[in-house]
Amino acid sequence: MKLDATDLKILEILRKDARTSFTEIGNALGIADSTVHVRVEKMINNDVIKSFTINVNSEALGKVHSLLMLDVTPGHFEEVVPSLIDSENVEEIIELHGAYVAALKISANSLAEMRDEIVRIRKIPNVTRTEMITILKTWKST
Amino acid sequence: MKLDATDLKILEILRKDARTSFTEIGNALGIADSTVHVRVEKMINNDVIKSFTINVNSEALGKVHSLLMLDVTPGHFEEVVPSLIDSENVEEIIELHGAYVAALKISANSLAEMRDEIVRIRKIPNVTRTEMITILKTWKST
Amino acid sequence: MKLDATDLKILEILRKDARTSFTEIGNALGIADSTVHVRVEKMINNDVIKSFTINVNSEALGKVHSLLMLDVTPGHFEEVVPSLIDSENVEEIIELHGAYVAALKISANSLAEMRDEIVRIRKIPNVTRTEMITILKTWKST
Amino acid sequence: MKLDATDLKILEILRKDARTSFTEIGNALGIADSTVHVRVEKMINNDVIKSFTINVNSEALGKVHSLLMLDVTPGHFEEVVPSLIDSENVEEIIELHGAYVAALKISANSLAEMRDEIVRIRKIPNVTRTEMITILKTWKST
Amino acid sequence: MKLDATDLKILEILRKDARTSFTEIGNALGIADSTVHVRVEKMINNDVIKSFTINVNSEALGKVHSLLMLDVTPGHFEEVVPSLIDSENVEEIIELHGAYVAALKISANSLAEMRDEIVRIRKIPNVTRTEMITILKTWKST
Amino acid sequence: MKLDATDLKILEILRKDARTSFTEIGNALGIADSTVHVRVEKMINNDVIKSFTINVNSEALGKVHSLLMLDVTPGHFEEVVPSLIDSENVEEIIELHGAYVAALKISANSLAEMRDEIVRIRKIPNVTRTEMITILKTWKST
Amino acid sequence: MKLDATDLKILEILRKDARTSFTEIGNALGIADSTVHVRVEKMINNDVIKSFTINVNSEALGKVHSLLMLDVTPGHFEEVVPSLIDSENVEEIIELHGAYVAALKISANSLAEMRDEIVRIRKIPNVTRTEMITILKTWKST
Amino acid sequence: MKLDATDLKILEILRKDARTSFTEIGNALGIADSTVHVRVEKMINNDVIKSFTINVNSEALGKVHSLLMLDVTPGHFEEVVPSLIDSENVEEIIELHGAYVAALKISANSLAEMRDEIVRIRKIPNVTRTEMITILKTWKST
Repeated sequence: MKLDATDLKILEILRKDARTSFTEIGNALGIADSTVHVRVEKMINNDVIKSFTINVNSEALGKVHSLLMLDVTPGHFEEVVPSLIDSENVEEIIELHGAYVAALKISANSLAEMRDEIVRIRKIPNVTRTEMITILKTWKST
Repeated sequence: MKLDATDLKILEILRKDARTSFTEIGNALGIADSTVHVRVEKMINNDVIKSFTINVNSEALGKVHSLLMLDVTPGHFEEVVPSLIDSENVEEIIELHGAYVAALKISANSLAEMRDEIVRIRKIPNVTRTEMITILKTWKST
Repeated sequence: MKLDATDLKILEILRKDARTSFTEIGNALGIADSTVHVRVEKMINNDVIKSFTINVNSEALGKVHSLLMLDVTPGHFEEVVPSLIDSENVEEIIELHGAYVAALKISANSLAEMRDEIVRIRKIPNVTRTEMITILKTWKST
Repeated sequence: MKLDATDLKILEILRKDARTSFTEIGNALGIADSTVHVRVEKMINNDVIKSFTINVNSEALGKVHSLLMLDVTPGHFEEVVPSLIDSENVEEIIELHGAYVAALKISANSLAEMRDEIVRIRKIPNVTRTEMITILKTWKST
Repeated sequence: MKLDATDLKILEILRKDARTSFTEIGNALGIADSTVHVRVEKMINNDVIKSFTINVNSEALGKVHSLLMLDVTPGHFEEVVPSLIDSENVEEIIELHGAYVAALKISANSLAEMRDEIVRIRKIPNVTRTEMITILKTWKST
Repeated sequence: MKLDATDLKILEILRKDARTSFTEIGNALGIADSTVHVRVEKMINNDVIKSFTINVNSEALGKVHSLLMLDVTPGHFEEVVPSLIDSENVEEIIELHGAYVAALKISANSLAEMRDEIVRIRKIPNVTRTEMITILKTWKST
Repeated sequence: MKLDATDLKILEILRKDARTSFTEIGNALGIADSTVHVRVEKMINNDVIKSFTINVNSEALGKVHSLLMLDVTPGHFEEVVPSLIDSENVEEIIELHGAYVAALKISANSLAEMRDEIVRIRKIPNVTRTEMITILKTWKST
Repeated sequence: MKLDATDLKILEILRKDARTSFTEIGNALGIADSTVHVRVEKMINNDVIKSFTINVNSEALGKVHSLLMLDVTPGHFEEVVPSLIDSENVEEIIELHGAYVAALKISANSLAEMRDEIVRIRKIPNVTRTEMITILKTWKST
């Protein structure tokens, strides 16, 4: 799907506050609220908008976070991915192909649970190397 | 603010779909929708819910992303942070104190714009070392 | 076992001088010596106090020490641990999951004996990588 | 002070259980308890025995531990040491002159307190580089 | 300048053999040789074709080559570049912003001349770190 | 083939502009154009001149470039080379035997195509480790 | 064999100039030349003096030198050693157990021969990783 | 000085046993002993033969050795060299320009003396970074 300037503006408004009504968005952009509605639906159907969600202050939840660098047997990363995606503890997976193939953001309720998750991930076939770096503070997230 | 099990369940539902109505949430949890309303408001006021937002497929936007590892003169990280937070290109800032003090997630419209942003960050006083790692694919984000 | 403030104070006193009598501890904390006795026994039984020991100046013993960083085949660390614990030369084992899975503190009577111990550890099945760093001076230990 | 075989055996017994009486030690080694007494006193006076202490299960205390690798401006390590020794959070300081000048073992009541201590250490003049590695489990300590 | 498919084909032919005549190119692509001429001139004027050159087998020249990784004081790379571009020994300069800011390809008539060039580069103001890696064989170059 | 000073001068002239006529070269060097012709042919036949080519401004083509560090099972690099040489995306292959066995220069039409090429290379038997570093700008190339 | 102060002085004199006569050594140390003779023979027989040799200026020989860091499958280094000792190109082998198991000093008549030797060493069974660092100048050797 | 095949053979013989007489060398090579004498003198005068020495088994001397990697402020290595050459503890200095500018081989009578020497070297102006790696065994030296 090809996005135009109006689509991008709608995305920008919803990113800042997903509860903004279509009427408010229409007014802000000088277009009809039905047009907003049609465009938003189209962006949902084309997977441009993956979901409506909330941005939670994870420190308020008492969670521990870490960045987990991951390396695998060359050529086998895609086989490892599903088992990472399925984990509740894995919040983010990015593929890098730098010194490590991927970086994950892991959350856990305690350092002990964090260790359990790392141990679990290390047991996935073809994982060859991991490096966990504890996150001490989150200054910005979107 | 101390969260109880009901709060955590509300957060979970909203995280999956922030457009779920309070009535639906109340039905799912067996509590009144007004209770849901009160609790959500309280979590917003206490900064547990930082915002209602959308999860956008950044690849659909044609954006380029990178992980930027950052080191600074010891003792000066907090002076560097504001200039990072203010940048539209900096999506995430996490403080690590591993081999690097922090990791940033940077987005840009092109590799050329990415380079401009890296060059800008390197000029912030007390930045001593950076390492950019291009993100080739995002498999999961929340 | 859940520790309260009095338990923590008893631990603190014993850590500084394990030969402090229960009477002295009781006086210092304003409680009966029999209470001290009961609490200490309970902490021993619950493995909070692992042992009464002496802090020996290992340099006086003419020992050589090293920090040994250790990596193993992912998922097999716990199989390697017993053979490390059993060694007289291995004074400490901490699990990290950083660039290395674990760090050990090794002592030996000479560099030649140190080499023998490293060679022995490298022969334990599933050990994939080691890095020995000689300790030149111990400034503080508890 | 030059230690002989009998001194080493006494140290070994006390290391395993510092509450062993001099009579028991004397019986075990076939020497008078007064001889044990004299030797122990001499080893204390000569700083061979640095202290009588207890080995506490730090996980039972709910503490968080980390290994902190430290680098300083060449030639200035000894100026940095006093400020490290004085800290309650710094349990151990070993001088290495490997990729880092020293390794510290840090304990804290929470990750937030750990961060505060790292930030404090990084502000000590002449500290140039630190790398914190979270300890996930202690398998052996003496 | 915007290139079309015909331009790209012309470039491809010239890259393989820069001595191919415009008539031959025209025949191959089914266009007039004058059209080829006009397009080539335009690409030269717009700096798409930087030069007509020969691909020399540098091993036949008895040259020694190395890859030189380079780091500079953050924010000062562009001041360092001119002194690198001017050197006959520097064949290539690419800006990376990875663990090093840039990589250079250096050629020299001997290892002694290579050392002189490295020493010269290290004396350029704001150069903070270099790592030379000797090239033992070139398998492909374009 | 042994090159003399005249050969080197001819190479130098052709490297700067491969379209310089033999007459012009002969005039510049004070030798007959037929002598230039003979020498150039000999250098082509002896693979000193590998090809006549053009130096294309790859940024004008909208290409993305990266430096790919490559490691293989010791003793198997030469088996990996053919599959690298054959790839259109691999512009350069240099053998180093530093921390990596080789460095490649990869070009692609987009970051997505770059990822595909990296994934393909990682699937070549005996490739054990890769590290991709994105090239953000080319300052000099010959 | 236990060396005394006189032995050490003899070694020192011979190290500076192995052609010093026993009479001269005897005079310098105030002992009989026959005593010098007996002691030198004993040190040769006990392998304290491994050989009488010359210190050659290898740069005068036009040799290329490198430091080769070597890693092997844990537990198999001693099997790799004989094949290293036998090579004329391997001048020195030291066992480290740092980031690499050993460091070698390699000499060769050219970079091409150096590459051949590295390739040969990499084919020795159980060699897992090598890193060659070219020596650009030797400032001191004994 | 240009060496011929006969010179190289003489060097080879002396390297294996510096006490071989000129007559024996002459016989082995089929030349007059006076010719051997003249050539050896010439090689000494031209600094090809730096000295006649003995190869001492340093382990028999009870020495501790280490490899010390050294980095300095770019452009200042030659100022640091004299202070290294003068030290009795520094046996070898090689200039690399890899991840470190130089590698030194250090010997000392004990780990404590080794530490003193490292501390001394780190105080030489312009030394920015050192990494000591203990040598556990020497398998070959020439």
